[in-house]
Amino acid sequence: MSNQIIDKLYEKVEKNGVVCVGLDTDISYIPQELLSKFVNIEDAIFEYNRRIIDATYDVVACFKLQIAYYEALGMSGLRAYSKTLKYLRDRDLLVIADIKRGDIAATAKMYAKAHFTGEFESDFITLNPYMGMDSIEPYLPYLEKHNKGIFALVKTSNSGSGDIQDCIIEGKDEVYEHVGSMIENLGKDYIGASGYSSLGVVVGCTHREQAKKLRKSLASSYFLIPGYGAQGGKAEDVALSLRSGNGGVVNSSRKILLAYKEEENFINFEDSSRKEAIRMRDDIKRAVLELEAKNEG
Amino acid sequence: MSNQIIDKLYEKVEKNGVVCVGLDTDISYIPQELLSKFVNIEDAIFEYNRRIIDATYDVVACFKLQIAYYEALGMSGLRAYSKTLKYLRDRDLLVIADIKRGDIAATAKMYAKAHFTGEFESDFITLNPYMGMDSIEPYLPYLEKHNKGIFALVKTSNSGSGDIQDCIIEGKDEVYEHVGSMIENLGKDYIGASGYSSLGVVVGCTHREQAKKLRKSLASSYFLIPGYGAQGGKAEDVALSLRSGNGGVVNSSRKILLAYKEEENFINFEDSSRKEAIRMRDDIKRAVLELEAKNEG
Repeated sequence: MSNQIIDKLYEKVEKNGVVCVGLDTDISYIPQELLSKFVNIEDAIFEYNRRIIDATYDVVACFKLQIAYYEALGMSGLRAYSKTLKYLRDRDLLVIADIKRGDIAATAKMYAKAHFTGEFESDFITLNPYMGMDSIEPYLPYLEKHNKGIFALVKTSNSGSGDIQDCIIEGKDEVYEHVGSMIENLGKDYIGASGYSSLGVVVGCTHREQAKKLRKSLASSYFLIPGYGAQGGKAEDVALSLRSGNGGVVNSSRKILLAYKEEENFINFEDSSRKEAIRMRDDIKRAVLELEAKNEG
Repeated sequence: MSNQIIDKLYEKVEKNGVVCVGLDTDISYIPQELLSKFVNIEDAIFEYNRRIIDATYDVVACFKLQIAYYEALGMSGLRAYSKTLKYLRDRDLLVIADIKRGDIAATAKMYAKAHFTGEFESDFITLNPYMGMDSIEPYLPYLEKHNKGIFALVKTSNSGSGDIQDCIIEGKDEVYEHVGSMIENLGKDYIGASGYSSLGVVVGCTHREQAKKLRKSLASSYFLIPGYGAQGGKAEDVALSLRSGNGGVVNSSRKILLAYKEEENFINFEDSSRKEAIRMRDDIKRAVLELEAKNEG
């Protein structure tokens, strides 16, 4: 059992709770007052992210950057992306790069180099497994040698996710169960002291039954859980994907970033974000305790 | 029937043949003599790409940039990526951005903005459909309003592609057939004068039986065909995915880019690439004629 980054994430959750702040920063999210101080989009986005990070880091498990929002702003956006990653990593905070890449081996090696080293280095990345397990394998040496982690898509939170993922395979289970078990097997070599593997899975909380089934069948897979809040997932749904309040991190982007828009007289946007992160953490903690009481009762 | 970019690609194939040059440019591919002229990686890569483009554009259908190779070089790589796209589009040459993105609707809109407009604008992009059809739909308005095109992954060329794609769905066909038919249906509104849709599919030529089946079942889907050459696919395999020598473009990257390494005394690397592109074009043309003769005989 080697040193695994998943153990570090596990510890963060033990200490700070399950919230993952999604820094899916759109320019329209930045309060006018802050935006007007900057000439470059790049600087405005980085400063916005920095303030959200500083205001929340001690009440959340980790951060997630959705790269699409940065790619949409071209080179400036990607510079802000790179700077935000560096800011997080310099402070020993954990960051997931939500890139959902997936390609053949030679190309996968390039993506691994791109997102596990250099200017876009992050701690965890998300991957799309549609091309098969040989499109995941080229990333695995980084789990062992560079202390990196992966979350592979298994059952996503969107309503169309059933188109492929819910199809029932002849003589087997649904596609998502099949994919989940292939990932779980591939991750056996990267299980840390926490009992979880640094090769984890993405399981949305918006599909209750599927999430429950996966939580049962995937013993050593850590969950990255999207779908809470803006996408309709509730704390009670999230609780089904956790084990004793750990075993997963729960992403929220817009609800945390735009919390200030819900307050009539907010003073600092980042204080509103912090309040929402704490509210979410406690909301999920309550649901976990209620579920445990029910299961014991 | 509106103006569709797929018709432009169809015409290019009628005129220049089916070859798609894969500009998956790794620094190690650049001859030392050229590399040593540049201080910046960015300039070296762009100059290499430019020379390959200038040497091949009249004997090929289009170009494909595998973004992973550029992401792996950080900001410099992405600047070279952006410059290469612009160089191609300024010359009215067609380019496919091989990005294989796939995400929920709000994020998909960001990827569409990123790769169909601005600094990373291309003519076609590749998409991964694992998350379902609502992860493809946000790109479709660009097909109509901005004359753009898509190739969605259906059956990929790698050996592990069967892990998910070949699973047989209860009461239905294989996953790849199911995905292919969903994409074909979604593409019905974007069929051009050529009879093909600007929403096409990726079908590797390394899996003969699957490619044959898909060519039969997908009447209006244009094929982007990887797997020829370095990955083991032969002209005879490719011919099965075409119709009268059209209906698809066939990618080759390393075999065209590194053609100069096969020649003992090459003069210009780009001349070697041109020769290989012509050889490949004619190799496939021959196989198409042989297959037609066989089918008629």
